[in-house]
Order: sequence, then C-alpha cells, then structure tokens
Amino acid sequence: MNYRYVIQVLGKLLVMFSAVMGGLALVAWVIDAMESWRVDVGAEEALLVSCVACLVVGGLMWRITRRCKRFMGRREALLLVASSWVLGAVFAALPFFVWARVFSGDAEHPFCSFDNCYFEAMSGLTTTGATVLADIESVPHELLLWRAFTHWIGGLGIIVLFVAVLPSLGLGGKKLFNVEAPGPAPQGLQPQIRQTARILWLIYGGLTVLEILALWTVARMHIFDAVCHSFSTVATGGFSTKNASIGYYYNKPAVDIIIIMFMVLAGANFGLYYQLWRGRAAAVWKDTELHLYLAMLALGSLVVAAAIANGGDPVVLTTGAEVAPDSAESIRQGIFTTVSIQSTTGFCTSDFNRWPFIAKAVLVAFMFVGGCSGSTAGGIKVIRIWIVLKVMIVQIEKFVRPNVTRPIRVSGDVVDSQLQLSAMIYVLGIIVVFAIGWGTIMVFEQWNPESACTLTTAATASVATLCTIGPGLDAVGAVENYGWFSGPSKIAMCVLMALGRLEFFAIVVLFTPTFWRRD
Amino acid sequence: MNYRYVIQVLGKLLVMFSAVMGGLALVAWVIDAMESWRVDVGAEEALLVSCVACLVVGGLMWRITRRCKRFMGRREALLLVASSWVLGAVFAALPFFVWARVFSGDAEHPFCSFDNCYFEAMSGLTTTGATVLADIESVPHELLLWRAFTHWIGGLGIIVLFVAVLPSLGLGGKKLFNVEAPGPAPQGLQPQIRQTARILWLIYGGLTVLEILALWTVARMHIFDAVCHSFSTVATGGFSTKNASIGYYYNKPAVDIIIIMFMVLAGANFGLYYQLWRGRAAAVWKDTELHLYLAMLALGSLVVAAAIANGGDPVVLTTGAEVAPDSAESIRQGIFTTVSIQSTTGFCTSDFNRWPFIAKAVLVAFMFVGGCSGSTAGGIKVIRIWIVLKVMIVQIEKFVRPNVTRPIRVSGDVVDSQLQLSAMIYVLGIIVVFAIGWGTIMVFEQWNPESACTLTTAATASVATLCTIGPGLDAVGAVENYGWFSGPSKIAMCVLMALGRLEFFAIVVLFTPTFWRRD
Repeated sequence: MNYRYVIQVLGKLLVMFSAVMGGLALVAWVIDAMESWRVDVGAEEALLVSCVACLVVGGLMWRITRRCKRFMGRREALLLVASSWVLGAVFAALPFFVWARVFSGDAEHPFCSFDNCYFEAMSGLTTTGATVLADIESVPHELLLWRAFTHWIGGLGIIVLFVAVLPSLGLGGKKLFNVEAPGPAPQGLQPQIRQTARILWLIYGGLTVLEILALWTVARMHIFDAVCHSFSTVATGGFSTKNASIGYYYNKPAVDIIIIMFMVLAGANFGLYYQLWRGRAAAVWKDTELHLYLAMLALGSLVVAAAIANGGDPVVLTTGAEVAPDSAESIRQGIFTTVSIQSTTGFCTSDFNRWPFIAKAVLVAFMFVGGCSGSTAGGIKVIRIWIVLKVMIVQIEKFVRPNVTRPIRVSGDVVDSQLQLSAMIYVLGIIVVFAIGWGTIMVFEQWNPESACTLTTAATASVATLCTIGPGLDAVGAVENYGWFSGPSKIAMCVLMALGRLEFFAIVVLFTPTFWRRD
Repeated sequence: MNYRYVIQVLGKLLVMFSAVMGGLALVAWVIDAMESWRVDVGAEEALLVSCVACLVVGGLMWRITRRCKRFMGRREALLLVASSWVLGAVFAALPFFVWARVFSGDAEHPFCSFDNCYFEAMSGLTTTGATVLADIESVPHELLLWRAFTHWIGGLGIIVLFVAVLPSLGLGGKKLFNVEAPGPAPQGLQPQIRQTARILWLIYGGLTVLEILALWTVARMHIFDAVCHSFSTVATGGFSTKNASIGYYYNKPAVDIIIIMFMVLAGANFGLYYQLWRGRAAAVWKDTELHLYLAMLALGSLVVAAAIANGGDPVVLTTGAEVAPDSAESIRQGIFTTVSIQSTTGFCTSDFNRWPFIAKAVLVAFMFVGGCSGSTAGGIKVIRIWIVLKVMIVQIEKFVRPNVTRPIRVSGDVVDSQLQLSAMIYVLGIIVVFAIGWGTIMVFEQWNPESACTLTTAATASVATLCTIGPGLDAVGAVENYGWFSGPSKIAMCVLMALGRLEFFAIVVLFTPTFWRRD
C-alpha cells in the first residue's frame, strides 16, 4: 500500500480547503469594510485560523511525502476516497468550532461541541443537509457560506473532484471513478478522464451560476442567499440560510419554481449533460433512467398533492403560518416536497410531518429511491431499482418457462449478470444498513432518558442520513433539527452519511483483512 | 393448461378434508356418548355439515374430470399449489362458520363473519397461528382440534403433501417439489419422490406422536391439549387451546422444555432427518445451516434473556400474572420466546411487547430470518441469509482485488450464480412485500376511525403474517389478537400468509401474462 501518495493527495485537498477559507475570509473582510454590510463577531478570524491550520497540516503532509512514488492502485484509491471524506470533515468543521468556542461568546451554542461541528461538516460534504442548528440565522454569514460551500465541493467531489482536481492520480483516477460515479455504470463518460472531468466541472459550475442568476435577478433573492441556496441545490444538499428553509420565500413563488427546476436537474445524470455538450441529444432522449425519474417525480407529486388536498388539514408552512389546502397550494407543496425528497436535497417549504399517512409513506419510499446515477443525489438510485425489478420479473417468468431466457436491457443496452448482482447487493445493502442504523440510534437514545426518540424518528433519521436527504419525520421533521441527539447517535449518523455517499464499498473495504494484507 | 386435472386433484384434496372432518365428528360423538366428557353445542353437527359440503363439491370435481389427461406440467403444478391453499382455506373455514352461524347461538361471535373464519383457516393452513379469537377456550373442543389439524396438514403439505398425497402428479411432482420445499435446494432429498415422501410422512408423524406422548405422560398435559399443541408445534403453527397460550402451563416447566425441544426440531431441515434415517449422520454433522440456526437460537436467547434481566421490569405472563425477572425466569422466557419466534411457531408464555427495546428488536429481526430450509418454518430461512452475506463479502473483496475469484460454498458445496441470485431475490422480495403489506394495512386501517393501528402494529402484523409467525407487537402482541382488524386488512394479511408460505412464486406467477398464455 502506497500510504505516502495517499497522504500527499490528502494534503493537497487540505491546501485547497485552506485556500477557500482564506478567500472567504478575505471577501467577507472586504465587504464588511466597504459596506458595513453586517458586523459578524469573529467569523473571519475563525475562518483565518482554520485556513492556517489546514495550510500547516496540509502543507506538511504534502511536503513530507513529496518524493513518493506517484502510483495509485485500486486500494490506494479506495483509501483516499474514504479518508478524504472522513478526515476532510474534521477540517471542514474547524471554522464552526473555532468561531463558537473562541469568538461567539455563547457557551451554549451547538457548535461549541466538536461532534456537532463534525456532524454539520460531514452533512455538508456528503450533501446530506441535516443540521444541528435550531437558529441558523444567528450564525454569521461567512460561516453559512462556508457551510453551503461544503455541499458544493462535496457534490463536485462526487462527480469530478477525484478525477479533475487531483489529476496526479493517473491510472488511479479511472479506478476512483468506478467508486465515485454514483450508479452502476458511468454511462456516456469516456475514458479520457481529465477532459471529461473538465467538462463536468464546467457543467456543474454553469448550473450553479445559472441558478444564482435566476434566483437573484428573476426571483429577487438577496445575492448572498442566492449563492448559498444555489450551492445547496446543485449539490442536492439542503442547507439553507433561513430557519424556515425555502418556506421563508413563500410569498415569492418564483423561488420555489426555480429551485424545483434545479433540484430536478441536479438529481439527473450529469453524464447526460455531457452527452448534450457533445451534441448527442439522442442518448438523452432514449435514457430509460431519465424517463423513470421524471415519471416518478410526476406521479409522486400527484399522489402527495392529492393526499394533502384530500386530507383537508391546513398546510403548516415551515414559518409556522397556516394556509388552506386548496388545489393550487396542494400541488405547489406536493411538487416541491416530492422533488426535494427524491432528488435527496431536503429543502422544506412546509411541515410534511403533519401530512396524511399516504403522503408521508410516498415521501419515505422516495427517500430510499433517490435520484439518478451519475448525479449528486443519494439513495439507491432509480436505475438500480429498475434493474432489480427487471431481474425479479425475469426470474418469475423463468419459473413458469425455465427454457426461455430474456436479456435484461436498460436504455437499449444489455445489463450483464455482474451488474445485476451488484445492483441487487446495493439495494439489499441500503436496506440492511438502514435497519442497523435504525436499531443503533434507538439503542443509543435509550441510554439518554430525556430523549424524545420514537421509532419513526430513529427510522427516518437513519434513512435521511444514509440516503443524504436531511429532514425526516417526527423529531427530525421539516421544522426540527438533529442537535438534540446524543453524541454516539450523531457519530452513528456520520457513519451512515459516509456509507451512503460513498456507496458503501469505499468505507466497508477498509474493514476487510484483504484490504490491509501486504502484497 | 390442463385445468381438468388440476380440478381433479383439488377435488381429491376436498374429499380428504371431508374424511378428516367426518372422522373428527365421529370420534367426538363417541367420546361424548361414552364419557359425557363435555357437551358442546353443535360442533359435531357443524363438522358433519362441512364434511358433506366438502364431499359433494370435492366428489363432483373429481367425477366430472375423471377422464382427463393425467398430465401435470410446471404451470399446472403452480396453479395447483396456489389454489389448494387459497381454495382449501375456504373449505377449512366452513366448520367455524357453520358452527357460529347455525349452532353457537352467539350472533356476536367472531366466527359469524366469514372473513374471520377464512383468516383463521388460512392462518392454520399456512402454519401462521394468527388468530381472530379473543376467547379461545369458549370454542368447542372439536373445532379447536380441527383448527390445530389445519396447522398439521398445512405443515405436512409444505414438506410432503404435494409429493406424497397427490401421487398422480408424476413429472409434476418433481416440479412442485421445487416450489414446495422451502429453501433454495432440497438438499439430500432424492428424486424417488414417492418413497422419500413416505419417509418424510413417517418422520413428521413420528415427531408428532413423540411430542404427544411427551406432553401427555411426562408433562401430564391433558391428552386433548397435548394433541392440539403437538399438531401446532411440529407444523411451527402456534394455535393453542388456551387463551394464555403456553403461559397457561407456567407451573409445569416440563411443558416449556418439551415444546422448546420440538419447536427447535420442527424449525430444522427435515431433509436432515431423512439423512439420519438413511444412516448418513455425517451429512447432518457438516450442515452449515443447522449450525447457524442453533447458534442464532443460542445467541438470540442470551441477548433477550440479558435484556429482560437488565431491564428489571417484572415479566408479565400471558395469564396476566407478574413474576420477578430473576436470572432463571429471564433465561426461561428468553429461550422460549426466541425459539418460538425464530422457528416461526408463535406460542407465547409472556407478553414480550412489554420487554426492553433490544429484546423486541432481536425478536423482530428473527421474525424475518425464520427457520431452516426444508422445515415447516417460514421467513427468509437461515441458509438464504448466509448465502446473501457470503455474496456480499465476496463482492466487497472483489472490489479490492478484482482478479481474485472465490467460489461460495455452503456445507462444502459450491453455490452457483443462479442460486445466489435467487437467494438475493427472495430476501429482497420478503422485504418489499413486507413494506407493501405494512403500507396496505396502514391505509386500510386509516379508513377505520376506531382502529388502534399504530405503525408498529401494522409493521409487525405484516411480518408476522408474511413470515408465518402469528403474534407481533403492540395491538397484535402476545396477549392480543387479529379480530379487531377491518375486513380489507384481514384479506391483505391472508394474501401475505399465502405469499410467504408458498415463497411468492406460486402466487405471483398467476399474475403474469406468460402464465396464462396458450401454447
């Protein structure tokens, strides 16, 4: 195992973190100085301290390994993926922790305990969007921007970071790509990884810029909020700058519409945008997963909207206001929430925990499904569900007529048996890890006599972190937060987030003897 | 499709039902006449009416098809399996319904509605043991014996009925055997089906007789209760003749011990007993599934017992009495309940719904696992869990070292990829059907404003019927019953029982167009 090279690449990642933190602090200082726009106590200082810490640690890691062999095999690649999320979150958590402990002057602030900061940073980097904060608006703008940036960089990481930012990987890059690209096959992405990665960067960045402009100019959102929400949307994260999440903008329906559009886009396969870029619109047109994804969104929205309208209870917005569940309102809330959940973003406009059972059941089912492969969305992914369903149908037909063999096709291509098996394993893996997470959280919360953790709370906390959604039901619902969980539960949920985001294997292999065996 | 032959075999099954009902009525009449042992109003008459009904319908079915081709293909076999459970339950429900409506004189009795009777009969034939009765002891002895007999014949059916009682199947027999033998491979059972079936008959009957004798002579249980409980045990059913189930015999620990032993035996692979019979003890010795099954039972009992003792709350027996949770009591309750749940029997001695979370979590997990393949137990089966785990481990290793291929072995034999795939599909199938059942019950109970159906109730009702256990948690707990569910929910649960008992495919294929296509 070439540990030295792994350490070097991690060092580079930290230096990149350092640069962003430094840049943020600088920009914030300039804005403060120019406009007296807002006086935030110590946020810049906290960012600068963290910037220096990342620079020192990252620089040292880079320096001491500078003469290593630049070889990255499969195992090195797996180790790098796992450690950049697990260790990356430690450094991403620093600004929150330093600010709360040293500069905020509030000894009761959630960020005063490091496990809360780590949870928030892991939730950011894994594009989950679960927060420990009850009062988000009291946190300085610089830190909220850093928080949104962890989403953005995490989402980018999922799509290209490991193939573009760390180009020294060489052969390793391709192998990482197999881990990173969510979904069974990185369809349409050519082996010329560096070039592809550059295009993906541009697409990802372009989407972000487009959304910022749309929110800022069309919906007249403040530029700061537009940037943060755009970072969250394209990464399908879900951190908001407002306590009421997107519900804050209830009187600006344009915000809802723009965010719905970009959530749908972010949950679709970025490989398709790459194909469009290369002028191959036909590939997009015949993509089965895209059709299914859009069909599920449409159908899900319809069912949820019908359930809200049929239930008849007033819709309670995340701001606390109540509105009558007329058809327009039901459709608006149904579409927004369904898209937000299936794209695994987790923005909220209303408290869906109060909705009728059928609406909640559909939403929880969609949490498991998630978006498309090759997107920033989490969950099982639409294409895997489809493959598994097809395998089941073929198996049932085989039972009637054992001599008839039908190949399984997706978007016109045959799905080989290895891919079938791995899709099945992944689906089972999600279910098993979800169940273990559920039980673990319940057990940990049993030790805490003041905990309000119900079975539903623990179950939805498990799926909402594993599938990188954010909000769940009951005590982790749309208007609640994760701050009240005990430390061990939060650590368990960090593990769930990392497992779900890295599609298990990059984490699980670290616990196999084979992985660490010398050869 | 050779419908005529399927109808003929179903007719024979009904004639067999008729004979048993007639025999039961006769025996009961003799005993009543000789001893004035108990005066039950109309139970014999109800049995006689049902006997005649079965004879007429079954005889007609047999007669009108007597000159059909005796060919049974794969599709005919599947249709026969499905319809003998689904239609068989209609006729098995007759004695309950006729007695309640015509002879009991109690218009409020649960058996006055046919969906309750059908539920009870389906629960019997699928060896589930879920009951709609709150007051079991008020039902006449003859009917309780018929009720226990539905377990016994259902359990026998799962192991041999379709290969032994219906010998005219010929080629079909072998095909049916593939459906019927629970578990991926009917390991150790030779193709000479008739002879094997006869031996399995003898083993099954022998175990039943042994248990009757043990309960009657050693534990001094009344002979009637000994017979009924033995029928329930070897079929891993769970119907008792007492309102308090086995908790009634709290002061006779020998009853617990004998029933635990026979539940363990009934949940193990009957193919192993066949091997023993043929003098091949080595095959038993090296059977991986048996080792895992026993290990799980031991470990599960330990965890449950420790949780009860550690929880410190008094153990509430099913009789309502409270006992201190000292070590002996915790171990007794822990072992009995764990064995009862994992063997999917569902006998109860104490109200495990009141136990600590960890104990309940283990029990619910064990509900999904179930017993061994080739037994009367339901659930996923230990061997499938083992295969799926091995597939996952191999897959993870492949991720680290893609060029290393290790075959998956169970009991020394290589598990081929088709078997791996079908084990994975089965596990996923159970989970998916469980989730659909859960949601369906919840939705049906939403329509019933007086329903006390919680999420836990619906979830455990779904798994307890699908995996043929019987009791669940909350409102379907050890001291509760299924009588309060609405009609639609009961029908849904009948479907779950049939699906779980027949391992899906025999039922699901009926809904595929391929199945009904002419050729």
